Parts: sequence; C-alpha cells; structure tokens
Amino acid sequence: MSNEASAIIRTMTLSDLGEFGLIDLIRSIAANENSESSPCRGVLVGIGDDATAWQTDNHIQLATTDTLVQDIHFDLAITGWEELGWKALAVNLSDIAAMGGIPRYALLSLALPGELKVEDISKFISAMVRLAREFGTALVGGNVATAPNVVITVTVIGYSTGETILRRSTASPGERIAVTGHLGLSAAGLVMLKNRLVLGNDANTILRRAHLQPVPRVREGQVLVQQGVRTAIDLSDGLLADLDHICESSKANAKVVMEQVPVHPLVKANFSNHQELALCGGEDYELLFTADEATIARVKQTLDCPVTVIGELTGDQLATRVTVVDSQGNTVPYRKGGWEHFRNGAHEARIT
Amino acid sequence: MSNEASAIIRTMTLSDLGEFGLIDLIRSIAANENSESSPCRGVLVGIGDDATAWQTDNHIQLATTDTLVQDIHFDLAITGWEELGWKALAVNLSDIAAMGGIPRYALLSLALPGELKVEDISKFISAMVRLAREFGTALVGGNVATAPNVVITVTVIGYSTGETILRRSTASPGERIAVTGHLGLSAAGLVMLKNRLVLGNDANTILRRAHLQPVPRVREGQVLVQQGVRTAIDLSDGLLADLDHICESSKANAKVVMEQVPVHPLVKANFSNHQELALCGGEDYELLFTADEATIARVKQTLDCPVTVIGELTGDQLATRVTVVDSQGNTVPYRKGGWEHFRNGAHEARIT
Repeated sequence: MSNEASAIIRTMTLSDLGEFGLIDLIRSIAANENSESSPCRGVLVGIGDDATAWQTDNHIQLATTDTLVQDIHFDLAITGWEELGWKALAVNLSDIAAMGGIPRYALLSLALPGELKVEDISKFISAMVRLAREFGTALVGGNVATAPNVVITVTVIGYSTGETILRRSTASPGERIAVTGHLGLSAAGLVMLKNRLVLGNDANTILRRAHLQPVPRVREGQVLVQQGVRTAIDLSDGLLADLDHICESSKANAKVVMEQVPVHPLVKANFSNHQELALCGGEDYELLFTADEATIARVKQTLDCPVTVIGELTGDQLATRVTVVDSQGNTVPYRKGGWEHFRNGAHEARIT
Repeated sequence: MSNEASAIIRTMTLSDLGEFGLIDLIRSIAANENSESSPCRGVLVGIGDDATAWQTDNHIQLATTDTLVQDIHFDLAITGWEELGWKALAVNLSDIAAMGGIPRYALLSLALPGELKVEDISKFISAMVRLAREFGTALVGGNVATAPNVVITVTVIGYSTGETILRRSTASPGERIAVTGHLGLSAAGLVMLKNRLVLGNDANTILRRAHLQPVPRVREGQVLVQQGVRTAIDLSDGLLADLDHICESSKANAKVVMEQVPVHPLVKANFSNHQELALCGGEDYELLFTADEATIARVKQTLDCPVTVIGELTGDQLATRVTVVDSQGNTVPYRKGGWEHFRNGAHEARIT
C-alpha cells in the first residue's frame, strides 16, 4: 500500500467507509491472511452473501448471524417483546431461505440491561422458540450478558440437501428478475408505527405484522433450488439495494420496470410514496431471484405465493448497475438507496 | 404456575434472576416448547454447557457463541484493538476446547459506533484472523451494524472426530479434579491494568497477555478426549464457579485443597490476595477436568503443559457443592463467587 493510501486509512472512520466498505475490508483481510494455509478448504460461499456455505461429506452446510441493536434496528416504544423475539430469529431464517437451505439450529446471544423484566424476556424467548419450531429449528445454545442497551445476536445453522444453493454471484444477462409476495408493507409499517398513523380496516394489524413479524420464505427458497434457480437474495436492505448486491456479485446490470413491481395494495392505498417504499424500503424479507423464463414459470406453478417478474438482467455497460424504467422504457430517476449501516441516519433513499 | 409465582415473575428483573437463572429460564422455555415436535432430534448437548453439540452422520458437530460488550467485558482505555480481536475469538475457541473439539469456522457480528477508526478495526480483524489461522479456523461470515457502543459476537462452529465429547454433566464421586496450566494470571492482569501497577521484569507483559490474549487450550482439549476424560469446562467464570457448574450438572460435590491449586508464581509474588485471584478471578481459559487417577496420569504424560490435581469429587450430601480445604483438611471459608452477569457490578468474590 502507498504511503498516501496508508495515510488516508489512518484518518478514515467507519462512517467514511460505510457498511459495505467495512464488509469488503473484513473480506480482504480474512482472505489475505487465510491464503497460505487451508482453513478455508471446503468453503463454498464466504463473507458477503446472505449466509456462509461449506461442503461437508454429505451436505452443504449453511450458517448465518445477525445482530439487532436497540434504537438502531428496533425501538422498544413501538415493538413488543414477542415481536422482537420473532423478528430476531426471522431475519436469520430469511438468510437461510435466501440460500435455499433448511434451518436446523439456532444460537442466541443476548446483551441486556439488568433492569429489564423477566416477564418481558420470557415473552421474547417464547416467541422465538415458537417461530423456531414452526420452521423445524431448535434453540440449542447461546450466551447472556449485561449491557447498557439491548443487543440481540442470533446465529442459525442449516443445510442444503441438494448439490446446489442459491447465491448472489451466479446471475447472467438475459435472465428475468422475479420477486415473491408483495413489497413495501414492512417499510410502510415502520412509517405507520413511528407516526402512530391510524389506517382503515385491518391495515394497521397487517402493516404492523409485516414490519415486526415477517414470515421468512424458507419453503419458497427450497422450491427455488429444486426448480433450478441458482441466484437469489432476501429483501432486507430494499429491492434496489439488494438487486444491486446481486449485480455487483454477478458483474451484471439490471433493468426494473416500475409498473411491474408488486407494490402491496395496502401500501398503494395509504401511502403517496408507495413506489419509494416498495423499491427502497427494505425488510420485506421476500425473495428476489433471477432465472430464465421457463424456470420462473415452473416456480410460479409450484409456489402458493405470488411470483412476479419485475425486469431483466442486461449485458449493458452502464455506470449505474440498476436502472428503473417506466412502461414506455423511460428511465425513472431515483437516488441510490436502501439501508446502509454507518451511512444512514435513517432510511434516506428517495425517488426523485 | 400459581398466581403467586406468576405475580413474582411479573415484577422480577434480570438483576433479581441473575445470569444463571436467566439461562435456566431460556432452557426451560426452549425445552417446553420443543418437546412435542422433533427439532431437537440429534442434539447431544443443549443450552447450559460450554458449547452445543449435535450428532451428524459422520461427526459430532459443535457450536458456541459469545458476546463481548464494551465497558462490561472490556475497557478500550486499557485494551488494544489487536488484543480485543484476539480475545473475542479466543474465548469462543476455548469453549470448543472445553468440549474436546476442533474449531473450523468463525462468524463475526460487529456492532460499532461510526466514529471508530478504520485503522483500529483493521487491526482488530487482522488479529482475529491471525489467531483463527493458528487454530485452523476460517473467518467465513458475519454481520456489521451501527451501535452506540462496541458489541462483538463471535460464533465458532467445530466438530469432534471421536464418538465422545467433554461435558459438564458426566463427573462422578471418587474422580480427581485437575486443571491445566497456572491460575490467577488473567485476574491479576486485570487488576494490574486497571490500577496501572508497575511490576518487575517481564511481569507486566506476561500478565497483560494473560488477560488480553489468552491462548485457548484447543489441542489439550482434544488430548483429554483421546485419553478418556469425559468431563471438562474451561475456566471463564473462575475456578470455584466453574467447578460449581460441573457439580451442579453432574449432581456431585467437590473438595479442593487450597495448597494444591497451581497459583501462578508471578501472582503469588506480586499479589497478597493471590488465592482469591486463582480461585475466583476467572478468565484463565485453562481446562478444569475430572477423571480417575490412571486417566489423569496418562494425560500428564501426553500434555506439554502442567496438569495439577487440586482435589476430588465426593459423594457427600453437603449444602455447599464446592468446599475448599487446607492441607490439614480444615475448611477454608470463601464467599461464593466468580463472575455472574446481572449480579456482579465487578468481580465481587472474596475469600473471607
């Protein structure tokens, strides 16, 4: 490294580097340091996908970990303890789903203030165990410690029975881009909860649940693999940001047709910025995947949930990896967005 | 549950319950909720040992997770970033060592303030990767997020090639209690660092390293299994507290002879409360194990590090599970101690 580069690194903060810069840094150090010896033998997918994967004698094994920090990822003023227990596990199950895997074991590491009520933590654990059981997963271990604020880390270990898994790096130009379910509900739910909006009929319940008790697409991920899909990611950062992750890993570009994006009807009906919520809102925990038309047709026939083609991967050499167009093919400008730790003070993505 | 019990639980805080009470609560909820279905099939060791273990087709697989919270587990005023990276992984490798396992993969979840320097985090990661490589372990994944204070969660996944592992629950009356290495160095190191003590010769360096860069007894744990040992724990909470964990799990009592405890010479030479530091100080990350005399003799012959018999397990029905005696057999009184989250404001154990 040049002296100049060294000097820049010496004064840089994590806010300068951003979440994805930090992940790249960790990956580069781990790779450099590991290159001479063989601890990485058998690793199929390392740092930078939804989950890590390695080959064992019989299976592909998967592992993922995710941390939720109080006042960054959740606000106890608007989140119940049952909901928090559910969500802390759900986001990890979703990462296993995004690899097409089967979750099996969960470890829970809790950092908690001593003044919390035992009753609340009991609700938290019970909800987590209930969700775990629903997906055939056992809570088998973990760790508890004191902390000034609540920090929850869940690790889920699973496996894939087949010979393949879903990755971010395997997308090819010409493939269609598809998504499960409807989008924007979770981000709309967050807006509703923060602003204490009162919406009609069951909308409040549905939006609250979408944001705080997302249902991971575990079975759907397995069907994708079985039907021959090779590329997927779960929607945590936001549709455009997550699609950008696929494009970056696969060295591809993507074109999304705005009108084809399945914005949830309740979001359309209640939020004027429904396009922004669906494209950049994040935390829908639906699966975004790419495949040829025939494969997507098979997936549609097999799955109970909606599957919508929203665009295609292109071979274009564009500065912007992900382009949004209207039905006439005109580019819809948007500010590159989606959630990024160390950078966002809040979800700052905007369609302009 | 009676109404009275429910009312008590409703008002209880985690400080009332304590770390081990909370672990029991989690175990009871996980067990209750899992009992009807089968996600726990194959689980050999669940919540409440050093690591979790489950049977796969070829191996026993192991997983452990540990969180370090700023100002609870470490103080950045006295801890370098390299040391922190080392220690965050070392404590997890030690948990795998305490099962007699081979660590293979590490996941790192980092919650960090944005104003931290990239250079410091680079040092942290490099040190962690260096230690990982030393023990044949690959850093393969994880997660990063913003947080007001530093919270580090490491998960290590490993395996055992043999048919058995080291547990806490398999000790029997009549067995000898033995420990690897010397004790008290880490706690003495913490006292030295906190009080900025200046000790003679290399003592400062050795004590600092013992507290901040402990070397996990990974190879030693594997030798214990190979030589027929069945019961072990790593010394994280403190000798007496960790021995109490074995006794509780094994439904046994223990007698420790004070004079036989291998207090490190540097601790003896520099700290008047050296007995307390060795018995209750914690974080030595040595292995405490029980076995018959012949097995311990074989272990002694095989290992390069010191192995010292410090007492024996008894069938006595005593109120106190762990008793400390002097060489004449007289009871040495001590306040039950060792580190317990939610209870300790600091290491409060004292020999009285």
